[in-house]
Amino acid sequence: MNVEIVTIGNEVLSGRTVDTNFAYLARALEATSVEVLWHSTVGDSAERIAEGLGRALERADAVVMTGGLGPTPDDVTRKAVATLLGRPLGLDEQVLAAIRERGKKSGRKLPATVETMALIPRGAEVWMNPVGAAPGIVITHRDKPVILLPGVPQEMEALTEEYLVPFLRERTGRTVESFTLRTYGAFESQLHERIGSLPDQWPGASFAYLPSYFGVDLRVTVAGNSAPGVRESVLRAYNELMAKVRNVVYAEGGIGMEEVVGSCLRERSWRVATAESCTGGLLAKRLTDTPGSSAWFERGFVTYANAAKLEQLDVDEATLNAQGAVSAAVAEQMAAGARAHANVEVGIGITGVAGPDGGSENKPVGTVFIALVTPLGTVSRVHRFLGTRATIRERAAQTALDMLRRHLLELPVDPSLD
Amino acid sequence: MNVEIVTIGNEVLSGRTVDTNFAYLARALEATSVEVLWHSTVGDSAERIAEGLGRALERADAVVMTGGLGPTPDDVTRKAVATLLGRPLGLDEQVLAAIRERGKKSGRKLPATVETMALIPRGAEVWMNPVGAAPGIVITHRDKPVILLPGVPQEMEALTEEYLVPFLRERTGRTVESFTLRTYGAFESQLHERIGSLPDQWPGASFAYLPSYFGVDLRVTVAGNSAPGVRESVLRAYNELMAKVRNVVYAEGGIGMEEVVGSCLRERSWRVATAESCTGGLLAKRLTDTPGSSAWFERGFVTYANAAKLEQLDVDEATLNAQGAVSAAVAEQMAAGARAHANVEVGIGITGVAGPDGGSENKPVGTVFIALVTPLGTVSRVHRFLGTRATIRERAAQTALDMLRRHLLELPVDPSLD
Repeated sequence: MNVEIVTIGNEVLSGRTVDTNFAYLARALEATSVEVLWHSTVGDSAERIAEGLGRALERADAVVMTGGLGPTPDDVTRKAVATLLGRPLGLDEQVLAAIRERGKKSGRKLPATVETMALIPRGAEVWMNPVGAAPGIVITHRDKPVILLPGVPQEMEALTEEYLVPFLRERTGRTVESFTLRTYGAFESQLHERIGSLPDQWPGASFAYLPSYFGVDLRVTVAGNSAPGVRESVLRAYNELMAKVRNVVYAEGGIGMEEVVGSCLRERSWRVATAESCTGGLLAKRLTDTPGSSAWFERGFVTYANAAKLEQLDVDEATLNAQGAVSAAVAEQMAAGARAHANVEVGIGITGVAGPDGGSENKPVGTVFIALVTPLGTVSRVHRFLGTRATIRERAAQTALDMLRRHLLELPVDPSLD
Repeated sequence: MNVEIVTIGNEVLSGRTVDTNFAYLARALEATSVEVLWHSTVGDSAERIAEGLGRALERADAVVMTGGLGPTPDDVTRKAVATLLGRPLGLDEQVLAAIRERGKKSGRKLPATVETMALIPRGAEVWMNPVGAAPGIVITHRDKPVILLPGVPQEMEALTEEYLVPFLRERTGRTVESFTLRTYGAFESQLHERIGSLPDQWPGASFAYLPSYFGVDLRVTVAGNSAPGVRESVLRAYNELMAKVRNVVYAEGGIGMEEVVGSCLRERSWRVATAESCTGGLLAKRLTDTPGSSAWFERGFVTYANAAKLEQLDVDEATLNAQGAVSAAVAEQMAAGARAHANVEVGIGITGVAGPDGGSENKPVGTVFIALVTPLGTVSRVHRFLGTRATIRERAAQTALDMLRRHLLELPVDPSLD
């Protein structure tokens, strides 16, 4: 079964809004084993919406359209679809009641136009929106489902998860399972060299490398007609893939590096303090992205000026003058100073050249020293990151977190596939 | 003149990669005054690419396709287009020489397949790629230009800027000018109420509200056949719009709030120190996003634990116990402590409840106190931000920067359209 997704909206067609809804839907639909073969984007015009839907119905088994279901005059999807498919709009009492109830709860005076969202094409099924007013709408046209979803991302996502995925799953009758291994410290090409054509041997599996500056995620999706068969293939894939890449896997699923580090610290009942120069607070920000991080994050020092390094972290002035602020010795002293002043178990120090200026022959832009001081000992490393100022800073923070994770787990600090 | 953009690539169709190329192209093409009326996405399949191009040629005056021009077997755009348009591929000596030259310079041994990128459809125009190997290709088919661009964002962007925009501009013969006013502190609905239908009076202008949690950008684009006419309309739009919203405009064009704050500090030769609790280093990170920020950013304190607030910033223990860590008094003491310890002119303190836990009836999630202490005096405000932990933190940092900007410019600290 194949599907066409149609995005509706001038803000998307003009490039003002990047179409993350489409990417979300395409990934979510993987779990249903339908194939997304086409995607198109049209503006908020009844004519274009009708044209987009007409073409989609010619070539796809099902059509999912997002956007244009709101209450303002430029929301014309409902009307365009009703006209094209010959299903006049009528007021749906259940939807109307839900809209009025939402209005009452919010305590705000809503304009009368919101009630246009209760106009539903005749004979359509309605999916009540758990987080907003505009419902999902399903029309079956010559045996092909046409599904309309609102364009507000959180509403579209809620309806997709609650209704669309189960609906398509039931129609395909196939089982789909997937898992993701998150790796850090190996390039995509190194992973590829190691994994090779192994995924071809997993029945029903598709395999993807998903690189970003947070590492390379490895994603396996298995589809099949038999649930036990799919399960068996997933287990085999998991075990065989893990055997190849175990040494660089830091998490599974959607867990972030900062959450893993938090768990490792919690496990030991240790607390951390950060001392940052070139990352300018980003490492502390990452560590506090996680709710509840106050259990293990104590404080952070953003010692951008040299005076701050000397005064706040007791960095030795002679060392600083002799080796420079960007050096292993200063990174270690920063980590030790943060640890001592915060009176915690773990200190991290980062100092480097984020650029675009400030590089030299010996210490080009992207040179970053990272040091850890903990009851397990002191570790420091120098890294050379490529990229812009922003990506160098992101990579430095992610690398510091991975170093700390490895150190706390008593793994070798330098990531290696072997 | 209208254009269809076709994105080619399994990684986009699968939702793995969000299609930022399309958004870039749509925005870039605004400067040419062509209209982007359709966008479609197809996978790396010769059949689908041909179908996508065929449909696009039926309805558009020009077609721009991105992706699938690389050297690997799944890059089939060149071949699919050549076949559909009846233009056999032939080796282009100039492109081949450029590819070999690039290989030599990189010092890496390139696989022989890279030379397939020199295969060009007969009679096509070639746009040499300034930052990569795959050139842009222009085929004129029944008077309609079909333009093929590589999918690597930086290559696509370089070719768009250098060749595509001038090419389309010349074909439309129209002049386009645009400007953006960046506002902070007024909701989109408030701006809309104030601006109303004013933009309808600017000849040839289109007007857009671009909201994000960094504020609402207002963008005006004017197109016309006469350069002086366009200029006149732009000036009128600028003056009339500015008259309406001047009090909440913090920058023009692509300048970020942190850059504006940096300029204000530089202007006074003042330096800043930050003291953060709930933002956990994000404010320091924002201030150091700008290259050269060491001229005015001295240091930051991420005092997550109460002990850190007492020890590092001399927050008064009695005040903290009586009023709580999330209070105006503590925010002010944090700002004053950061300023005194760093021995700089400007101290900023932020303390609040980022959530999802930790809220109370009096101080619900999203309550954030922000204080400034400078030679101009002490200011503090309480804010209630809506959203997730991440957006509350982003809004708090942006609001602190805007408060500081207003204070340094001796404007009223609370933004207001009036």
